[in-house]
Amino acid sequence: MDLEAYLDSVARQVDSLVDRSFGDVWTDLDRASAHLLFAGGKRLRPAVVMLAAEAVNNGSSSDILPAALAIELTHTFTLVHDDIMDDDLMRRGVQTVHTKWDMPTGILAGDVLYARAFEFLCISIAPDNAKVRAVSMLARACAEICAGQHMDMSFEKRDDVTDGEYLEMVRKKTGVLYAAAAGIGGILAGCNAHQAKTLYQFGLNTGIAFQIQDDLIDLLTPSEVSGKDRASDLREGKQTLIWIKAREKGIDLSPYKRDLSDAEIDEVISMLNNAGVIEEVRKVATDLVSESNRLLNMLPPSPSRELLRDIGAFFVTRSF
Amino acid sequence: MDLEAYLDSVARQVDSLVDRSFGDVWTDLDRASAHLLFAGGKRLRPAVVMLAAEAVNNGSSSDILPAALAIELTHTFTLVHDDIMDDDLMRRGVQTVHTKWDMPTGILAGDVLYARAFEFLCISIAPDNAKVRAVSMLARACAEICAGQHMDMSFEKRDDVTDGEYLEMVRKKTGVLYAAAAGIGGILAGCNAHQAKTLYQFGLNTGIAFQIQDDLIDLLTPSEVSGKDRASDLREGKQTLIWIKAREKGIDLSPYKRDLSDAEIDEVISMLNNAGVIEEVRKVATDLVSESNRLLNMLPPSPSRELLRDIGAFFVTRSF
Repeated sequence: MDLEAYLDSVARQVDSLVDRSFGDVWTDLDRASAHLLFAGGKRLRPAVVMLAAEAVNNGSSSDILPAALAIELTHTFTLVHDDIMDDDLMRRGVQTVHTKWDMPTGILAGDVLYARAFEFLCISIAPDNAKVRAVSMLARACAEICAGQHMDMSFEKRDDVTDGEYLEMVRKKTGVLYAAAAGIGGILAGCNAHQAKTLYQFGLNTGIAFQIQDDLIDLLTPSEVSGKDRASDLREGKQTLIWIKAREKGIDLSPYKRDLSDAEIDEVISMLNNAGVIEEVRKVATDLVSESNRLLNMLPPSPSRELLRDIGAFFVTRSF
Repeated sequence: MDLEAYLDSVARQVDSLVDRSFGDVWTDLDRASAHLLFAGGKRLRPAVVMLAAEAVNNGSSSDILPAALAIELTHTFTLVHDDIMDDDLMRRGVQTVHTKWDMPTGILAGDVLYARAFEFLCISIAPDNAKVRAVSMLARACAEICAGQHMDMSFEKRDDVTDGEYLEMVRKKTGVLYAAAAGIGGILAGCNAHQAKTLYQFGLNTGIAFQIQDDLIDLLTPSEVSGKDRASDLREGKQTLIWIKAREKGIDLSPYKRDLSDAEIDEVISMLNNAGVIEEVRKVATDLVSESNRLLNMLPPSPSRELLRDIGAFFVTRSF
């Protein structure tokens, strides 16, 4: 199976479980909680859960679909809360939860998704000791994600963030959830401690690469393709790797920390391309994926292992 | 041991575990997360966890102290988020988290506490199958708490909330966490399914009674004793049982939906006392506690069972 077909298959399974997970009578809070979940999304983290399980368990992962959904629920909760903090208006081509409803409902919708994540993790079919390890791993990941988001916001008040600080922030904000996705998939499928560590590290590296690519997409991809506000990072003065590498090359992006026309954004892109900034940023991401691929050699060869490699490659080549 | 000494002992144990649970180097987000935890609090929910465990396990509960803290962390997360939604300024005699820091940090501080709750639940010493049941119970409780808070907020836009709707809201917002506290204490200590159900129902009833008493305290107890804004429910037009019973007796409290002087608050109290409203509201709470005490007859007699009864009685007699 190629990656696209695999991702489609996982997305269908996850979406079907989402459909079944809400009762027949919906409260307003149920609708707010489900809003972003039903607005699409690529279900990449669930795919990592399933592939990690298959890579250590001879291709079978059907028992842990609820855990795959748990990771997507966790991701969605962080999006709903982040959108409030950043006051973003659009996400996945629809209004953000706190915009369509209000701030209190946004906080609660995120909190409901957070609870459901742990509920679903426990209804996977797996040994209880594996579930307890999985719950602990997800809980630690959630705490780190918050720390990462807090670092990210603190960077907005600074203009001297270093590469190292940026990568530490991204490790927490995005890396650890991919790490937990891969680790939990392996653990629930019965992998050994060494494999769990390998999968966790694979997820961490590819997750960091994913976020770097996300920062590139924010700048490079038109809103109608990404479904997000374009160049919102630049407008908010986010110290992304793009910003930091530009500064290292003597390019000051702070004059662009405001609402920008598409023409102005294109001008910034052109300047960054000419200075080699975009290329350097891309290289950081692709190097992380290469390192991840090397790690996967420690798992037995299988079609699922190759799909994990494909997903890593996709993370740093996608344009949406 | 009498209840006061028992509560002091649990509070000391929980506080000591809180101290040890934060590392030596604190980030700003760590400080925000710990802020309300270190501002005191009666640790009533942890006491219920410990007593429930002792009541089914011959008086031993030391192994599940982390679970007791987990319930307190859950409670604290809901306070931090509720304070943002209600824009309350003070809590436990200190500034609320989003007031001392800011709204985004408040959201994240709550989210960190939420994660830590599940982390601590898993580090209790108990069989893995019991831990999985406990995680599921806590997760379901968290989702219900959110639904309860959402109902509570929706009541602010209405003036026709019924007794039944109010009790349903309180069951979710406050009852289920006490229910989970008692249920989880019992489950981790190895109780049977029947005992778990009894303890859950005990916690549910006493938790509802606790909230009714909290509503009475909000109106009746001066700020310097409660550490909270006085009569904030009245000011915000919250449809508490006091408001509803008053309306049933033809007393319209809506003219008091504004900032009130202490003299005006005393005037309202006097009017409600004369109409028998306060007495009727108290009776709903005390009846729930009586029902809880009856339920506890299904557990073997023990000093811990008697302390559970004492805690229920305390819930509806406390003035802070």
